[in-house]
Amino acid sequence: MARIRLGMVGGGNDAFIGGVHRIASRIDDRFELVAGALSSTPEKAKASGEALGLAPERSYGSFEEMAEAEAAREDGIEAVSIVTPNHVHYSAAKAFLDRGIHVICDKPLTSTAEDAEAMANAVAGSKALFILTHNYTGYPMIRQAREMIAAGDIGTLRVVQVEYAQDWLTDPVESEGSKQAQWRTDPARSGAGGATGDIGTHAYNLACFVTGLRGEELAADLQSFGVGRSLDDNAHVMLRFAGGGRGMLWCSQVAPGNENNLRLRVYGDKGGLEWKQEDPNYLWFTPHGEPPRLIRRMGAGASEAANAVSRIPGGHPEGYLEGFATIYAGAADAIRAVQGGSARDDAMGLLPDIQAGLDGMAFVRACVTSAGDNSAWVKL
Amino acid sequence: MARIRLGMVGGGNDAFIGGVHRIASRIDDRFELVAGALSSTPEKAKASGEALGLAPERSYGSFEEMAEAEAAREDGIEAVSIVTPNHVHYSAAKAFLDRGIHVICDKPLTSTAEDAEAMANAVAGSKALFILTHNYTGYPMIRQAREMIAAGDIGTLRVVQVEYAQDWLTDPVESEGSKQAQWRTDPARSGAGGATGDIGTHAYNLACFVTGLRGEELAADLQSFGVGRSLDDNAHVMLRFAGGGRGMLWCSQVAPGNENNLRLRVYGDKGGLEWKQEDPNYLWFTPHGEPPRLIRRMGAGASEAANAVSRIPGGHPEGYLEGFATIYAGAADAIRAVQGGSARDDAMGLLPDIQAGLDGMAFVRACVTSAGDNSAWVKL
Amino acid sequence: MARIRLGMVGGGNDAFIGGVHRIASRIDDRFELVAGALSSTPEKAKASGEALGLAPERSYGSFEEMAEAEAAREDGIEAVSIVTPNHVHYSAAKAFLDRGIHVICDKPLTSTAEDAEAMANAVAGSKALFILTHNYTGYPMIRQAREMIAAGDIGTLRVVQVEYAQDWLTDPVESEGSKQAQWRTDPARSGAGGATGDIGTHAYNLACFVTGLRGEELAADLQSFGVGRSLDDNAHVMLRFAGGGRGMLWCSQVAPGNENNLRLRVYGDKGGLEWKQEDPNYLWFTPHGEPPRLIRRMGAGASEAANAVSRIPGGHPEGYLEGFATIYAGAADAIRAVQGGSARDDAMGLLPDIQAGLDGMAFVRACVTSAGDNSAWVKL
Amino acid sequence: MARIRLGMVGGGNDAFIGGVHRIASRIDDRFELVAGALSSTPEKAKASGEALGLAPERSYGSFEEMAEAEAAREDGIEAVSIVTPNHVHYSAAKAFLDRGIHVICDKPLTSTAEDAEAMANAVAGSKALFILTHNYTGYPMIRQAREMIAAGDIGTLRVVQVEYAQDWLTDPVESEGSKQAQWRTDPARSGAGGATGDIGTHAYNLACFVTGLRGEELAADLQSFGVGRSLDDNAHVMLRFAGGGRGMLWCSQVAPGNENNLRLRVYGDKGGLEWKQEDPNYLWFTPHGEPPRLIRRMGAGASEAANAVSRIPGGHPEGYLEGFATIYAGAADAIRAVQGGSARDDAMGLLPDIQAGLDGMAFVRACVTSAGDNSAWVKL
Repeated sequence: MARIRLGMVGGGNDAFIGGVHRIASRIDDRFELVAGALSSTPEKAKASGEALGLAPERSYGSFEEMAEAEAAREDGIEAVSIVTPNHVHYSAAKAFLDRGIHVICDKPLTSTAEDAEAMANAVAGSKALFILTHNYTGYPMIRQAREMIAAGDIGTLRVVQVEYAQDWLTDPVESEGSKQAQWRTDPARSGAGGATGDIGTHAYNLACFVTGLRGEELAADLQSFGVGRSLDDNAHVMLRFAGGGRGMLWCSQVAPGNENNLRLRVYGDKGGLEWKQEDPNYLWFTPHGEPPRLIRRMGAGASEAANAVSRIPGGHPEGYLEGFATIYAGAADAIRAVQGGSARDDAMGLLPDIQAGLDGMAFVRACVTSAGDNSAWVKL
Repeated sequence: MARIRLGMVGGGNDAFIGGVHRIASRIDDRFELVAGALSSTPEKAKASGEALGLAPERSYGSFEEMAEAEAAREDGIEAVSIVTPNHVHYSAAKAFLDRGIHVICDKPLTSTAEDAEAMANAVAGSKALFILTHNYTGYPMIRQAREMIAAGDIGTLRVVQVEYAQDWLTDPVESEGSKQAQWRTDPARSGAGGATGDIGTHAYNLACFVTGLRGEELAADLQSFGVGRSLDDNAHVMLRFAGGGRGMLWCSQVAPGNENNLRLRVYGDKGGLEWKQEDPNYLWFTPHGEPPRLIRRMGAGASEAANAVSRIPGGHPEGYLEGFATIYAGAADAIRAVQGGSARDDAMGLLPDIQAGLDGMAFVRACVTSAGDNSAWVKL
Repeated sequence: MARIRLGMVGGGNDAFIGGVHRIASRIDDRFELVAGALSSTPEKAKASGEALGLAPERSYGSFEEMAEAEAAREDGIEAVSIVTPNHVHYSAAKAFLDRGIHVICDKPLTSTAEDAEAMANAVAGSKALFILTHNYTGYPMIRQAREMIAAGDIGTLRVVQVEYAQDWLTDPVESEGSKQAQWRTDPARSGAGGATGDIGTHAYNLACFVTGLRGEELAADLQSFGVGRSLDDNAHVMLRFAGGGRGMLWCSQVAPGNENNLRLRVYGDKGGLEWKQEDPNYLWFTPHGEPPRLIRRMGAGASEAANAVSRIPGGHPEGYLEGFATIYAGAADAIRAVQGGSARDDAMGLLPDIQAGLDGMAFVRACVTSAGDNSAWVKL
Repeated sequence: MARIRLGMVGGGNDAFIGGVHRIASRIDDRFELVAGALSSTPEKAKASGEALGLAPERSYGSFEEMAEAEAAREDGIEAVSIVTPNHVHYSAAKAFLDRGIHVICDKPLTSTAEDAEAMANAVAGSKALFILTHNYTGYPMIRQAREMIAAGDIGTLRVVQVEYAQDWLTDPVESEGSKQAQWRTDPARSGAGGATGDIGTHAYNLACFVTGLRGEELAADLQSFGVGRSLDDNAHVMLRFAGGGRGMLWCSQVAPGNENNLRLRVYGDKGGLEWKQEDPNYLWFTPHGEPPRLIRRMGAGASEAANAVSRIPGGHPEGYLEGFATIYAGAADAIRAVQGGSARDDAMGLLPDIQAGLDGMAFVRACVTSAGDNSAWVKL
């Protein structure tokens, strides 16, 4: 099947996540990167485009220019990846959605509630797909955990423990030249949430994705430990889910020793599941009253849902890029499906959608509101 | 040095914790069990005494009888271990404290706030020592963690994550004949806290012991998932410590796959420490910006504080009983010290005291109060 | 930089390792697959080529045809990946080497000693590069281990423990329809070694690559536990390295619970290093007399050599495919270098070469010889 | 039941293993230490006896004196623990065996083959029990592994991997004042084996105990890496068991990072078992084709055989001392049984006996012989 023609907004030479998207798009050979507006400064955009081997005429100085030009080409891009800082997500996405070009957008959805609402409207008014890269949902064992819970393997859910700990903001590196840290700690570019927006949204999304629960309300205590930092860099959150499940969420970027320690534990009245992003090929499953079982990707006990998004045999570890690639492969399937006439919602399958994005925004807003009201419970 | 003559209240044939106290008292050969009132029914008390090899005349039908008789003997007990359900702690302890007999008492302190206050008065009015068996403070690597934090090895404390998860109350076993479950889920015998009292107090005590922080206020969401259960069996707690540190505490007895999973993680602006009760010989230490180091009991990097309470070389795992024995060995030192004229407070050293007991009671009370007020912050 | 035009021999629809090579070749965007002779039966070859999107005229029925046709094209392939069963390696490689097309070949080198010698001659007689995919050498922490040992970080080497355990041949699956098992247990297609050839060569190569030691002699005890199996499926080997280091190597395909458990431990007079393929982002380093340190890919303590072959930040696990991709990326660099005039040997850098292949053949031969002589020491 | 009156030979103030025996004897309250010849120098013996609270007249200057005096007392010792360096084992044991006093003796059996034979004769000629403290057989999960294998849970045994790695002899500490190192590296006091005798015997014993296999022959390569060291400090051994099982044994005292890393893995045609002494409460069990299960002491899936030698609930780790105590508790049962008229062999149950000691001596002898004959296979 022919590869999907892909463009990219953001992701120039210095960026981290742009390179991740590009590798992820290549792994399953479903996309070909043919156009880009890779930086907010035209010169850097051109240089980055050249480095990536883009045709010079398709390396644009701005996303507006790119949207217009590509929409006009017969071999124009079919989809675009948006990998800019958060405050650019909405305007960039809208430019492509309005032209019927499918959008794959980094999380969180936007930097402001207004943008989020406008994004939802733009998606509603477009025929194009909108896919948010909550990439951790692409891990095979996460797919299996979701399937097992849906099948009742651990019974009625009671307790959800989710945490996402990092340490890279322990020191005030934003004032020491780290570009990654600068925009992430800047309310104008990141939005109201610091750690809550950057990684808390991932944790919250993952908990909801795996359990199938909907958050009802939360109570939050936010901290900014970093000297001179205005956004939260550590957050303690209690959660109440619809139906009676309760949870805790901890996200931190000031926990020395933690690199990217996203961890999920779910307990029901019949069993428990535990998973850790840094060792993603393993899923612990304890049927209550039996010994814990270590289910391994593509190994004994691995399920259809997990195997369907695995590439290589058990014991050959797949990692972060492969999980991310699963989102891209799913996006390719969805794009070809709608191109073939499928309804947009049917085509999305398990892909994170605009609703996941709005849920993440609601999570950040509720955290900030609750923290401002001395941790009162706030509806989600 | 001669062994200390020890009596025991509670701990008859069916009990779990009585046997633990007895082994712990023997490991370092500092005590000799010579008297007991081992059950609330005199016949069972006698039978248990016989099984333990007590002289028949020193196997008493009640603690009152034992206190009186032993106080009158020239070779009477010097100390007593109280290992009954919580609601008996106060009256039993008082009988011995009033007679100058040192008391080693299981946690939590009492089942009611009134009893706790009365216990504090009884301790204040006695010359005898009062030692609460928050046994987890006896683990060598916990001693080291405390010492390292006090020395500033991880800098100014920011975040404390403590959790204590079990699964033995996942099913309503109290209605299926489990005696251990029956009294622990019964407010009349346990007090206002379920999991919070039984294990939450341990977690809270451990966090305070290791960090040297004092809890200032907490916000709690308590649940009783077990069918027909009135006391909490799962608790989510946010903590604020004096001086700016923040924490989360999770305790649960309904988390399938968790046996006795007490785990502590502490992060400061210069590093982090992590410890897990089920693998107690290891302490993870990450100086910020360096690779995590695995410090092992009696191994390289193990400190004086840890080595002082270790018995055997590294790689030869010590466990729960040895950690418990360290409390007993410390009690023996303290008893001999006050017998030799030391001031009571000086003699206590790192032993958990009446204040630790009162702090635990305050923790449970604050959890229950906060939960009753929709998780409002409550002073500790 | 333009992508290298790549062809592939073998790797049709049913195969495992062909897909791995293709993903690996894409990850760093240095290759474009443009031609293939993907199966030994022309019909299946065509079907596989179509599935992969090859131009019909470049999907060949045999490697001979492909070598001839591609050599004649102006835009013919620059390199070819050979991913057939072992007995085809030599003839396929020769066809391309003789035409100056660079060869990337799966291990082990060949199925017979004669073929191995002929392969060495073919390489010697060609200007093209020959790269053997001992892919485990591409893992970042393996690169770091090698660098640390070379730098003397663990002192003079004493003991090497290497093992590679799998369980997929526990049952006689070759007689139950497994194609993977059939050729691997067939002397005509695999050669004289079973587990020794399939995975023992990887283990031996890794040990030599990391330590820089050369094997001097070995003593082996080989077993064929599987019913009706003639090749070894479990091997116990003692090793003596030049310079005094000693080692043990265990490889097995009948060890239930082991998926792809390649593990290397090296001890010197100043420290030790430990690594496990199934958790490849971690390297344990113990300077003697200090606590073990956990060095993580791209984390604190990770070295230049490791970072140079890493794609994403620490805590975002890279896996098997990324390690494999590093071999491909290295191959791309080497190919461009020789195209630019570099000497072939200089261009190879750390890539596994014909000598590594000959060493692997010598390892298998010595194992079989020693086992046939009741485990006598045999020179390597 | 009254405690057994126990004496001790060796184990004075500086010693390590004497203290271990004393704690182990106390844990289950079955023994009372009442006499000792605690050092080879009478003054040190007296001082050590006083420190341990022995009555002055029962703290002897030599074991001969003790044997004679205690045998003459009505309340003389019933059993004696021999915890001296290896070369004293025989003469000490004989003095007590000849007087009908039960002997609990540290391993390895003796330092010479002559002594071993004489010891066997002394045991045969006595009515007293002889128990060798291969303490690792006392761990609950080891008992369970043995029971599972005997029950066929992993099918017909194929492969045994056992290793015992330490690092405390990495440097030549015997020439730097370490008393523990001095006698263990001295052929006159240790015998022909260094690491093989000190820890290799434990590893070999454990492998045989758990599997129920008998060693048939071995091939060994021994090394003395420590400067100026004559006895082996690292050993590579291939094993052939009666019935077709094959194994490898590695023992080392020069492997930096390893404290007391005894590890056993056993694979049959239906499954695998893995256990690690440093985390002794866990047993990994993989039925072939199913996910690995983590069986925990006293947890789900723990067997009768394991529970029978456990003291406290799952999640409350038991360690080395408790495993050692199980040998003592078993010894107490056996002593009371023979005192009550049981046949000596019946009373022994799973306790390590003279045969285990002879097997260990045969293991060391075969290792040394094989190594001296360039690793030829030597019968066990």
